[in-house]
Amino acid sequence: MNTQSTTVYRASILNFQSDPYPIVDGEAVLDNSAYQFYQDGALVIEDGKVQHVGEAHDVLATLPSDVEIVEYKDHLIIPGMIDTHIHYPQVEVIASYGEQLMDWLNNYTFPAEGQFEDKAYASNIANFFLDELLKCGTTTALVFGTVHKQSVEAFFEASEQRNTRMICGKVMMDRNAPDFLCDTPDASYDDSKSLIDTWHNKGRQLYAVTPRFAITSTHEQLQKAEQLLQEYPDVYMQTHISENKDEMAFVAELFPQAKDYLDVYDQYNLLGKRSVFAHGIHLNKREHQRLHETGSSVSFCPTSNLFLGSGLLDIQELEQHQVAYSIATDVGGGTSFSMLQTLSEAYKVTQMKGNKLSPLKSLYLATLGNAKTLQLDDKIGSFKTGNEADFVVLDFNSTAIMSLKQSKCKTLAEKLFAMIILGDDRAVEATYVAGTCVHKRDGKQ
Amino acid sequence: MNTQSTTVYRASILNFQSDPYPIVDGEAVLDNSAYQFYQDGALVIEDGKVQHVGEAHDVLATLPSDVEIVEYKDHLIIPGMIDTHIHYPQVEVIASYGEQLMDWLNNYTFPAEGQFEDKAYASNIANFFLDELLKCGTTTALVFGTVHKQSVEAFFEASEQRNTRMICGKVMMDRNAPDFLCDTPDASYDDSKSLIDTWHNKGRQLYAVTPRFAITSTHEQLQKAEQLLQEYPDVYMQTHISENKDEMAFVAELFPQAKDYLDVYDQYNLLGKRSVFAHGIHLNKREHQRLHETGSSVSFCPTSNLFLGSGLLDIQELEQHQVAYSIATDVGGGTSFSMLQTLSEAYKVTQMKGNKLSPLKSLYLATLGNAKTLQLDDKIGSFKTGNEADFVVLDFNSTAIMSLKQSKCKTLAEKLFAMIILGDDRAVEATYVAGTCVHKRDGKQ
Repeated sequence: MNTQSTTVYRASILNFQSDPYPIVDGEAVLDNSAYQFYQDGALVIEDGKVQHVGEAHDVLATLPSDVEIVEYKDHLIIPGMIDTHIHYPQVEVIASYGEQLMDWLNNYTFPAEGQFEDKAYASNIANFFLDELLKCGTTTALVFGTVHKQSVEAFFEASEQRNTRMICGKVMMDRNAPDFLCDTPDASYDDSKSLIDTWHNKGRQLYAVTPRFAITSTHEQLQKAEQLLQEYPDVYMQTHISENKDEMAFVAELFPQAKDYLDVYDQYNLLGKRSVFAHGIHLNKREHQRLHETGSSVSFCPTSNLFLGSGLLDIQELEQHQVAYSIATDVGGGTSFSMLQTLSEAYKVTQMKGNKLSPLKSLYLATLGNAKTLQLDDKIGSFKTGNEADFVVLDFNSTAIMSLKQSKCKTLAEKLFAMIILGDDRAVEATYVAGTCVHKRDGKQ
Repeated sequence: MNTQSTTVYRASILNFQSDPYPIVDGEAVLDNSAYQFYQDGALVIEDGKVQHVGEAHDVLATLPSDVEIVEYKDHLIIPGMIDTHIHYPQVEVIASYGEQLMDWLNNYTFPAEGQFEDKAYASNIANFFLDELLKCGTTTALVFGTVHKQSVEAFFEASEQRNTRMICGKVMMDRNAPDFLCDTPDASYDDSKSLIDTWHNKGRQLYAVTPRFAITSTHEQLQKAEQLLQEYPDVYMQTHISENKDEMAFVAELFPQAKDYLDVYDQYNLLGKRSVFAHGIHLNKREHQRLHETGSSVSFCPTSNLFLGSGLLDIQELEQHQVAYSIATDVGGGTSFSMLQTLSEAYKVTQMKGNKLSPLKSLYLATLGNAKTLQLDDKIGSFKTGNEADFVVLDFNSTAIMSLKQSKCKTLAEKLFAMIILGDDRAVEATYVAGTCVHKRDGKQ
C-alpha cells in the first residue's frame, strides 16, 4: 500500500450500513446489524476516499508502522452530516420575528433575496453559509438559491473552492412574488439549463431544478420544470409542499383542477426518486401513496416547523405509508445550522406525536438516511470503502454539562442521545471534506 | 457621594418597569412606557445595590471624574434572569431518552435523586448547578431539592458562598416513590421547619415548602404542608400541576373527592401569591379562575414540555383568565439551563398556539415578570434604585451568525429577538451578583 496519501483517524467511530429501525409488518424494529460502532476505531483515508474502517487494533496491524495517525481521543467520528433542505440566501432572515409562512416570505424572505442580484453580495453570503455548515459538521446540503442565475454561480464557486458535495438550484418563480424576484418561463428554463450544463457533475457539484412552490409558478413555468427534468433525468427536483394551512388554501384556489397539493406537481411529472418535497406536514393519504409509488421523499424541518408555527410532522404516518423522508434545517425558517440541534428538535416533535425518534435512527437519518433520499449513498453518508471521505469529529466534552452528562451515560444510545440533545456547533471538533480538514473548532486548524 | 464602592457599567441597557404588553379589555396592548432602553447607558452600582440607571452622558456628568467605569461596548445589560422552576438534583438527568412524565420519574429522576442522601455528592452537584445558572445569566431560581434535608443544606451553602438570591425547598414525598426517597408526614414537617428556621431570609436565601405533586403526598402530608404555610406565611410553596395526561388521571384516582387537580392543593390551602405551580398545561376554566382569585402563578416550561411530549401551554388562555405566569427551564426535564434558549422555545410554542410571544414580553418575563410572580420585584428583576445589583452583560457578537444577524437588525425589537433565538450561554459575556462579577465567559474573570 502506498502510504504517501494515507491517513488513519483513530477515535470511536459510528457507521451505518442500513436503517437501524426498518419497518417490519408496519412496526419499526431495531436491527443491530444495521450499524457498526468501534469504541477504539480507525478510519483509513486514502486519496480523499474511505479505504477501510474497523477496530484500531486490527486496522493498524495491516498498515506500515510509519503511517500517519491522527488521534481524536474521547471523540466520535461519524460521516459528514447531510441537510436536505436549506436556503442559502436566507442566512440573514434567520431569527426574524413574528410571522407565519406567507407573511414571512413577503416581509422578510423576498426583500432579503432581492440582494442576490449582486453577485459579489451572493458570494459573500455563500462563503459565510458554507463555513457555518462546515462548522456544524454538515458536508452536503440540498440548497435553494434565489431566482438570480448568478446566486447559484456564486454558490457553486464557493462550494467548489471547498470541494464540498453540494446540490443547488436557481429558484423558478414567475408570479405571486415581487417583480424584482420574478423570472419568466423561458428565462427560468434558459438559466436553469445553462447552470446544469456548466455545473451539474462538475467536480462534486450537482444541480436541482427548483420551482419555489406551486404558488409562485404558472402552468407554463411548471411545464418548463418538467421539460428540464425530461432533458436531464439525473438532476434533482426540490420544492415545498403543505407547510402551512394558508399556503394550502392558496394552492387549492390557484389549481382548482388538481386533486390536492401534490397533484399539482404530479401533473407536471415532478415526482420521482430525486424529488425532495420540503415539509409535507399536512398531506393526505392519497398524497402519501403517490409519494411512495414515485419514490419521492419528504424533508422534515423541525426547527422551522415550530418557529413558523407550521405544525408537527407525523413521521410515523410517513413510515406507515412507506414514504421516504429525510431531515433538514430549513434555515432561514429554521433556527439553527446545526443538524445536532435539528435532531434534538425532531425528537421533541416526535415526542409530541407520541412516537419518539431514537438516537440511532436520528444519526442514521442525518448521515446515510439523508444520503439515500438524495440517491447519494454510493458516494457519501457512510464509511463504505470507496466513498468520498467526508466526516465529522464530535467531542463528548464540548461543554461542562455535556461532559457531566456523558460521564453518567452507560450505553452507546445514551451517549448519542446526550450528544444530540446537548450538542451544537461546539460539539464539532473538526470537519473533513474528501479527506481534507476544512474546519477545526476554535480555529486551531 | 462615596465613590469607594461605586462602579459604573457602560453599555446599552434594557430595564422594565412594568409589563410591556398589559391586558387591556382582554387584549395585550404594547405600552412603550413600560421599559427604558439606553443605547449608550450607564448603570451605577453602589455597595452591591442599584444606585441609578440612565443615559451615560447624563449619569457620568453627576459623578466624580475618577469614578470606576467598566465599559461593555456593543453589549446589552439587562437585570439578572430568573428561573421559576428547576430541579438542581436533576442535572445529570438532563437529556435522558425516551420517556414521558411518569416513566421519566421512575426510570431516571428517582434513581438520580437517591444519590443526594450523600451530602458531599449534593454539594458537588449544587456547585456545578449554580455555576451553570450563572454562566447562562440566571441569578435567581426557584429550586427543588430532593427529599433529603441535607440536599437543601448543601444547596443553600453553595448559594450563600456565591451570595445568590435563591429559593429552595426539601421535597415532601411519602408515597408512590421508591422507599429510599420517601419521608413521612412528621419527618417532612420537622425537616422543612428546621430548614426554614435556619435558612429562610438568611442572607439572600429563601425557603419554599415543596410537596412534589399530589401523587406523591398523602392526605396527612399535605396537611403538614398546610401547617407549615400557616406557621410561616412568608415562605413559598412550589409544586407541579397538570403536566401530563397520565399524571392527571392518577391524581383523579387518588383524590376522587376533589373537583379537579388544583382543588387537591386548594383543599389544603396551598394556593396564594407565593405559590408557584409548574406546567399547568391542561387546566380547566375553574382552575384558571381559582388561580386568578388566589394570586397563584403558573410556571411555563417550554423546553421540558416539548422534550417530555407533555403539551403546548396556551399562555393566551392564562392571560384571558388573568392568571399570573412566569417562565422556567425545568432542568432536568428541560433541555437547557439558558433562559435565552428557553425564551426561544417559548416563542415556538406560542407560534404553534397562534399567539406569538414578543421579544420585549419575553425579556420582561425573564426579569421583572418572573420577579413579580415570586413577589421579589422590590429586590430584583429591574434596575430600580435600591434593588440588589444582579445583572447580565449580553454580547451581540457572541457567534458568527449572531453577529451577522445583528448587523442586519434595524430595531431594538429585532435585535432582542435575534438575541433570544440565536443566543445561548455564549451570549452571556458576564454575570454580576449583588454588584460582584461571578462569571466571565471563557474564564476571563
